[in-house]
Amino acid sequence: MGGHYTGLHEWQITGLREECGVFGVYLSDCEADVSPMIYYGLYALQHRGQESAGIAVTDGLRLRYFKDMGLVSEVFDPKILNQLKGYSGIGHVRYSTTGSSYVANAQPLVVRYKGGDMALAHNGNLVNAVSLRGELEAQGAVFQTTSDTEVIANLISRAEGDDIKDVISQAMRQINGSYAVVILTNDAIIGVRDPYGIRPLCLGKLGDGYVLASESCALDAIGAEFVRDIKPGEGIAVSKNGVESFKIMDSPKMALCSFEFVYLARTDSVIDGAGVYRARINAGRMLAMEHPVQADMVIGVPDSGTTAAIGYAQQSGIPFGEGLIKNRYVGRTFIQPEQKMREEGVKVKLNALRETVKGKRIVMVDDSIVRGTTSSQIVEMLREAGAVEVHMRVSSPPVQYPCYFGIDTPSRDNLIGAMHTVKEIGDMIGVDSLGYLSVDGLVRSVAEAVGRYEFSASDCPYCLACFDGHYPVDVPEQGQKYLFENAGGRK
Amino acid sequence: MGGHYTGLHEWQITGLREECGVFGVYLSDCEADVSPMIYYGLYALQHRGQESAGIAVTDGLRLRYFKDMGLVSEVFDPKILNQLKGYSGIGHVRYSTTGSSYVANAQPLVVRYKGGDMALAHNGNLVNAVSLRGELEAQGAVFQTTSDTEVIANLISRAEGDDIKDVISQAMRQINGSYAVVILTNDAIIGVRDPYGIRPLCLGKLGDGYVLASESCALDAIGAEFVRDIKPGEGIAVSKNGVESFKIMDSPKMALCSFEFVYLARTDSVIDGAGVYRARINAGRMLAMEHPVQADMVIGVPDSGTTAAIGYAQQSGIPFGEGLIKNRYVGRTFIQPEQKMREEGVKVKLNALRETVKGKRIVMVDDSIVRGTTSSQIVEMLREAGAVEVHMRVSSPPVQYPCYFGIDTPSRDNLIGAMHTVKEIGDMIGVDSLGYLSVDGLVRSVAEAVGRYEFSASDCPYCLACFDGHYPVDVPEQGQKYLFENAGGRK
Amino acid sequence: MGGHYTGLHEWQITGLREECGVFGVYLSDCEADVSPMIYYGLYALQHRGQESAGIAVTDGLRLRYFKDMGLVSEVFDPKILNQLKGYSGIGHVRYSTTGSSYVANAQPLVVRYKGGDMALAHNGNLVNAVSLRGELEAQGAVFQTTSDTEVIANLISRAEGDDIKDVISQAMRQINGSYAVVILTNDAIIGVRDPYGIRPLCLGKLGDGYVLASESCALDAIGAEFVRDIKPGEGIAVSKNGVESFKIMDSPKMALCSFEFVYLARTDSVIDGAGVYRARINAGRMLAMEHPVQADMVIGVPDSGTTAAIGYAQQSGIPFGEGLIKNRYVGRTFIQPEQKMREEGVKVKLNALRETVKGKRIVMVDDSIVRGTTSSQIVEMLREAGAVEVHMRVSSPPVQYPCYFGIDTPSRDNLIGAMHTVKEIGDMIGVDSLGYLSVDGLVRSVAEAVGRYEFSASDCPYCLACFDGHYPVDVPEQGQKYLFENAGGRK
Amino acid sequence: MGGHYTGLHEWQITGLREECGVFGVYLSDCEADVSPMIYYGLYALQHRGQESAGIAVTDGLRLRYFKDMGLVSEVFDPKILNQLKGYSGIGHVRYSTTGSSYVANAQPLVVRYKGGDMALAHNGNLVNAVSLRGELEAQGAVFQTTSDTEVIANLISRAEGDDIKDVISQAMRQINGSYAVVILTNDAIIGVRDPYGIRPLCLGKLGDGYVLASESCALDAIGAEFVRDIKPGEGIAVSKNGVESFKIMDSPKMALCSFEFVYLARTDSVIDGAGVYRARINAGRMLAMEHPVQADMVIGVPDSGTTAAIGYAQQSGIPFGEGLIKNRYVGRTFIQPEQKMREEGVKVKLNALRETVKGKRIVMVDDSIVRGTTSSQIVEMLREAGAVEVHMRVSSPPVQYPCYFGIDTPSRDNLIGAMHTVKEIGDMIGVDSLGYLSVDGLVRSVAEAVGRYEFSASDCPYCLACFDGHYPVDVPEQGQKYLFENAGGRK
Repeated sequence: MGGHYTGLHEWQITGLREECGVFGVYLSDCEADVSPMIYYGLYALQHRGQESAGIAVTDGLRLRYFKDMGLVSEVFDPKILNQLKGYSGIGHVRYSTTGSSYVANAQPLVVRYKGGDMALAHNGNLVNAVSLRGELEAQGAVFQTTSDTEVIANLISRAEGDDIKDVISQAMRQINGSYAVVILTNDAIIGVRDPYGIRPLCLGKLGDGYVLASESCALDAIGAEFVRDIKPGEGIAVSKNGVESFKIMDSPKMALCSFEFVYLARTDSVIDGAGVYRARINAGRMLAMEHPVQADMVIGVPDSGTTAAIGYAQQSGIPFGEGLIKNRYVGRTFIQPEQKMREEGVKVKLNALRETVKGKRIVMVDDSIVRGTTSSQIVEMLREAGAVEVHMRVSSPPVQYPCYFGIDTPSRDNLIGAMHTVKEIGDMIGVDSLGYLSVDGLVRSVAEAVGRYEFSASDCPYCLACFDGHYPVDVPEQGQKYLFENAGGRK
Repeated sequence: MGGHYTGLHEWQITGLREECGVFGVYLSDCEADVSPMIYYGLYALQHRGQESAGIAVTDGLRLRYFKDMGLVSEVFDPKILNQLKGYSGIGHVRYSTTGSSYVANAQPLVVRYKGGDMALAHNGNLVNAVSLRGELEAQGAVFQTTSDTEVIANLISRAEGDDIKDVISQAMRQINGSYAVVILTNDAIIGVRDPYGIRPLCLGKLGDGYVLASESCALDAIGAEFVRDIKPGEGIAVSKNGVESFKIMDSPKMALCSFEFVYLARTDSVIDGAGVYRARINAGRMLAMEHPVQADMVIGVPDSGTTAAIGYAQQSGIPFGEGLIKNRYVGRTFIQPEQKMREEGVKVKLNALRETVKGKRIVMVDDSIVRGTTSSQIVEMLREAGAVEVHMRVSSPPVQYPCYFGIDTPSRDNLIGAMHTVKEIGDMIGVDSLGYLSVDGLVRSVAEAVGRYEFSASDCPYCLACFDGHYPVDVPEQGQKYLFENAGGRK
Repeated sequence: MGGHYTGLHEWQITGLREECGVFGVYLSDCEADVSPMIYYGLYALQHRGQESAGIAVTDGLRLRYFKDMGLVSEVFDPKILNQLKGYSGIGHVRYSTTGSSYVANAQPLVVRYKGGDMALAHNGNLVNAVSLRGELEAQGAVFQTTSDTEVIANLISRAEGDDIKDVISQAMRQINGSYAVVILTNDAIIGVRDPYGIRPLCLGKLGDGYVLASESCALDAIGAEFVRDIKPGEGIAVSKNGVESFKIMDSPKMALCSFEFVYLARTDSVIDGAGVYRARINAGRMLAMEHPVQADMVIGVPDSGTTAAIGYAQQSGIPFGEGLIKNRYVGRTFIQPEQKMREEGVKVKLNALRETVKGKRIVMVDDSIVRGTTSSQIVEMLREAGAVEVHMRVSSPPVQYPCYFGIDTPSRDNLIGAMHTVKEIGDMIGVDSLGYLSVDGLVRSVAEAVGRYEFSASDCPYCLACFDGHYPVDVPEQGQKYLFENAGGRK
Repeated sequence: MGGHYTGLHEWQITGLREECGVFGVYLSDCEADVSPMIYYGLYALQHRGQESAGIAVTDGLRLRYFKDMGLVSEVFDPKILNQLKGYSGIGHVRYSTTGSSYVANAQPLVVRYKGGDMALAHNGNLVNAVSLRGELEAQGAVFQTTSDTEVIANLISRAEGDDIKDVISQAMRQINGSYAVVILTNDAIIGVRDPYGIRPLCLGKLGDGYVLASESCALDAIGAEFVRDIKPGEGIAVSKNGVESFKIMDSPKMALCSFEFVYLARTDSVIDGAGVYRARINAGRMLAMEHPVQADMVIGVPDSGTTAAIGYAQQSGIPFGEGLIKNRYVGRTFIQPEQKMREEGVKVKLNALRETVKGKRIVMVDDSIVRGTTSSQIVEMLREAGAVEVHMRVSSPPVQYPCYFGIDTPSRDNLIGAMHTVKEIGDMIGVDSLGYLSVDGLVRSVAEAVGRYEFSASDCPYCLACFDGHYPVDVPEQGQKYLFENAGGRK
């Protein structure tokens, strides 16, 4: 209600690690109006970030942009879109997992540099952001935000090269980390993906124009045709010359974030050949094979556990049903009940369906367990509703290691999978049995969705670091992650 | 975005026919703080009305209230709730189906009359509102809103009686129509239900206090225990004397709105003994028996068709799957794509899941068809995604008659079920086959949920008027509904 | 910044006593657009009320209205004015002197009654509001606000008569108190003034149409020509029949509020024949004659004391100068400094002009002293800036009695003029000498502005009750004013 | 009302030339809370900029800031000030003379650079901004705003030096133009003034702490004691070491903007030894000597002409009076009447006082004439009110040349003083006679206020370039100003 914090912040590199969505459209018709397309594209990517939204467009002569805190539908209105005239543009949605969010960190970041005007939208995380900032500051750079995007803009403004493709390639080669970046100039849109392909990025075709998007569901939303995924280490420039591919650097190996399949991506997207829905159904099926149980009904924790629950039901033959009803109206300013009220029984997000649950042995499927507190409450709710047994099945392995590539994970102390055995976790959340999908099961779920039976250990193209600790790139030593972040705040 | 229309309106009785939710809590502890309870109760009833929300409370000495346009989470913040101090109070959520909504019509309506202060919240519709207004105006009444609630307040202020129960009874006896009303005075909360029980209202217990709510899911939300439904023609007063039941008038028959089970109520509510979830599963099962088909997958149109789709799948043995993905982020200010954009393929609300639909014969289940345009678009979407056959099944009979009891229905010309045969409708929306649940099937679905095999024709306790035209109370002659409404606007 | 309290209030008749401005325009051309005229008219009356603003218009068929908390320029924007289509309409600005203000009490009040639709805007105060409310409630009336305007609407809706003029006359005859009311129906605008003419109301001509306004400055603002003041007890109806005058009741005597000349009205208005600027200049001149002093410079306390200071300077021959500079930017949400900060020297509204004040003997003129605290701070400020003597002159007599006719006055305990002698007051605010204008001097100031040398005691046409306690109508006994108000809150 | 444009802009260096106010406070007590002091200081400087406001503070460890579009009282509320905890801080108010204003250009600008965190607030204009930007871009700088402040930050981040004073000195030496800059680091506040002293900046003392402010009225507002003005080319650092003065560069000559005395500064400020009020009174007196006339009354155009009018009246012996009444409530969203309405007589800002003006010969004093349209309307208003003669006197010389140092002036084509003779101007605005103060008269007005009889031509310490075209520093050739600006937009 009221108030608009445009910049109140503690000036500190907080090591925000957000998931985001990027989008770009280049229409061949100079008279075309691209901003409604970007609006609907961002709306389709809204699940990747609900904190802020922004659009930058060009009419070939100048960039115009607008960004603010809020959902796409809250930030933009027809009057604003009308002023964002242009035939080419990019957009961004951002999710912040911390309270220290403010509009200065919203994207796209729009800058003027020696090459002219440029807007940047970034999904990912720079592992070497602190050292890059230090080097750039030593060269006289000033920073106005704490976002990695500003670091990228400064690298580009200092890179030398024959053309924008060359300049961007040089800049990106200095980065250690994950990125799917779309860049807008007055002439072109450019998309680049890190050499491991950690974050997704795909190309679509819309009439004679082209589209870049974090996920294929955003292509569907605007009626664009899927062309292909951007390759690891590849750049794509769309301009009046059409589509040009260029190499940023060699890709040592593919390491697409496996969590996109577990939770992040929308069910109707296809990423690097794998349908997300299919991968989740498969994960549920694998889970049923790895952790079978005698029960009367399989239910999903809405919405993220539903698809895997259907897969579990299909494989096990146990009927699928709805056992938990979700209230769809939690808004940004919703007042959470205090601890005391929760203890007294106030339930705001989920309610158990007494009549389907009562007297039944329940298999409850969710996509992951982070802290364990939510799972524990749901299990209690089911028991109160009369469930005689609750068997929890999780469609991913225990999260045991921090992510350095764009997903916020709590400190290891709060990561239940890092601190406890499966047996202990099951006791803590009060279930009759608990089963996690194995790392191998997760990989095979996705592999089958791509159409291969499985990958060999050596050529698995997914990052599984949060499960097994094997990071595709060098990261700070374990245990030093948070120290490192805090150190970054104040030299 | 911005602006706040507190009263811009054309002064006209527009015959708004909204669905709403009412809620009331009386805590025995005078020091208790009731407004957070009402907040969470209204939040659980949010599906019954998203246009405005309001809360009125009393500390025993004076009423305080706040209401505004918007969702519960948008209207209230901690600062406002803090100022709504009291141990007893009521709340309301309102859904308007037209554009002419404004805060003056938001509820509760708070008035001062000869009996002191009073707040009213109403769900339903007065069939004789125009004649009651005329009589009241002849007696000198002035009206500041177009809502039926103001008519009820004026009837109460003119009624004579020994006590508030008597006064309210006398007032309500003049009403022809549907109502579930909760009233707050400085001493008590009172709930009354019309003699046909058209709109639902139930009683719960919370510690030593009591709760009144449109649906039982709101009792669950605040940890209250379900006691019983209010009977048709019954009033319930909760005060320091505890709970008192009183009779408004005899109930000629029960005629609970059957559409509560089809669409309106939340799946986890139990209304007059029938679990909504169970009734919907049953409806899907009946539908499978009435309209079987050879197919590969049963899908629901999210979210309203999902439960019946599961029932259809259970009965038919055809696997249940997800074939349509819904975007969850449509906000109030969302910009709908223009016709041209929709034709070019811009899809904002639903996307077909290509990989599950492709090459399949699909049974698509929805709860109802109103105008037919949405169904037609979804069918086309499924075909584009590769469905080889699309068989639509509707878990309620064709809507053929207007509702006079609180549900907005378009004019008969726009009611596809009133103007066309099932065969014609199937052709219009482009399906391979179309089947509606029979009226008998709908009644049996609910009957089974109550635990009876079926009702005899003579004792069916549900209003089926929108399907069969048999209204429980006298209503204006067919065809005159809209004439009548417009006439009401200007004498 | 943020927050919009549409109805949060303690339901209680608080006896708000506000000053307000009313305005109405009837254009002869049915196609004309009256709302911009009302906008500028209200803007010219903004000094009479800064809390809320509202406009109601009719196109002959229906009333439309909009009102909200805030300045005219904050409440209305082009989009809203565009929707207020009509050739006839009224407007209102309201000033509340207490914190318990809310939009439900904003005006115009728009109602539907047996005579059709009606909008009312009122400036004044009903002395017998509580008893009228009681009688109306006994007849079944319900009240939704605490404003007197709702009482007037209820009196009109119950009055019988041949036409609207007759009906309004009957209604107004029941009122004891002050009023300047403008009423809008679909056919006409009507203005009525109480039988003592306590609050001002005048008639203007605009093309073939007519205008009603609290002050003539609002006629000037829209280029209308002043016709005449409405007489005490007179009603004016403007319709397609032209202007008609009708008698509400006989006027026992004229008793225009003298405070309009002291402070309330804008300097460029002419009320009942007296130019406000001239009356204030005269008051300054009389003051110089009644309380001469040897000094070097005459200054006014900006802005209300400036004109009388110029008059004092003219009469005394002492040069006029600026000694206090006012900051013009105090907005509604301005944060007042805390007591401690004020003691430390934080000054937000006024600053003394050191270079003009230093070493000088100053005559400081203000229009009135209410509590005395502000005067005391200003005097200290002048002394700190180097003034060697400060002689305060007040261009009105000491306020000693409460007003029952629309001006908020603090309780007698806080009214410095009621509790202390002039000598004591002078000591309390720290001046070298203090002189108030006499009651006789005030009357002569205005008389001269009308063009008469003076009025005889028996025919003085001004209400001087706040100075001398002689109320033109019966009011509650002294000392019972506040008791009476509180009693009204809860029977 | 509604909408919040955080960044919608055409990315272009628009050559905005704004007047601004800067403020800084360093309190010796580390526990002290400086933000309310800055709030009241900025409020006292509000006349220097009403478009945006911002505050940055430090608690010694980190900077926090908040800035937004709007008045000081609109941008800040107690909740925000509470979060701005610190014992040292700076603030800024900004005035934009064009429509292309947006929050990205609001100040202070807060950056992180190799020296740590820094906030900057700037009043002035860099004449060589375009070439400095070009050089910085060539070195890899990226710009996110179009403000000069970002150029200054980049110069500082690239400067080398022993300490912050040295670094800032080196940076500022590259600037050609006007500046009064206050800078906040975690250790100190620093104020610097350009070598000609074109924009004002003064030092005050508050307890054991120090204050920097654009004008002395802001020192008065918080109860601080005036110490001295910052010298041209001087820097002042306030830290735990107390106040240190350092030299940026030699001052070739003093050239304080003379328009500060004509219009910009608040009447109660003293700038470089000259009281603004005294200078304006003197200007009115000189004007009476240079352009005497036979008349009955002297009036000022409120508010800017009032003080000079008093001076004119004192010198000429013609009585001072009020002839024009100003409406004080023009808000930011006020709807200006359309041309047609103005022609029909709608007057929103000023009204003539008929009774004082009628039949009189009027001397009307204003501070300047820019386009002439406003003066023309006022003269017509006075004649309609019955003035028999209107003699306009202007308390500054004709503005004939553009300002390059921070004041927005229209293009020469629209500068009536540049395109027409005094005789022509008088005819155009319809006065009986017109007289401008001479350049010499203006200089003597200020000189007398400093306490000197006059300055010799060679040592006049004021910039008079807008009147005589003699710029203190090299500026682009005449006629190229706007070309130059446009060229800056797109290389």
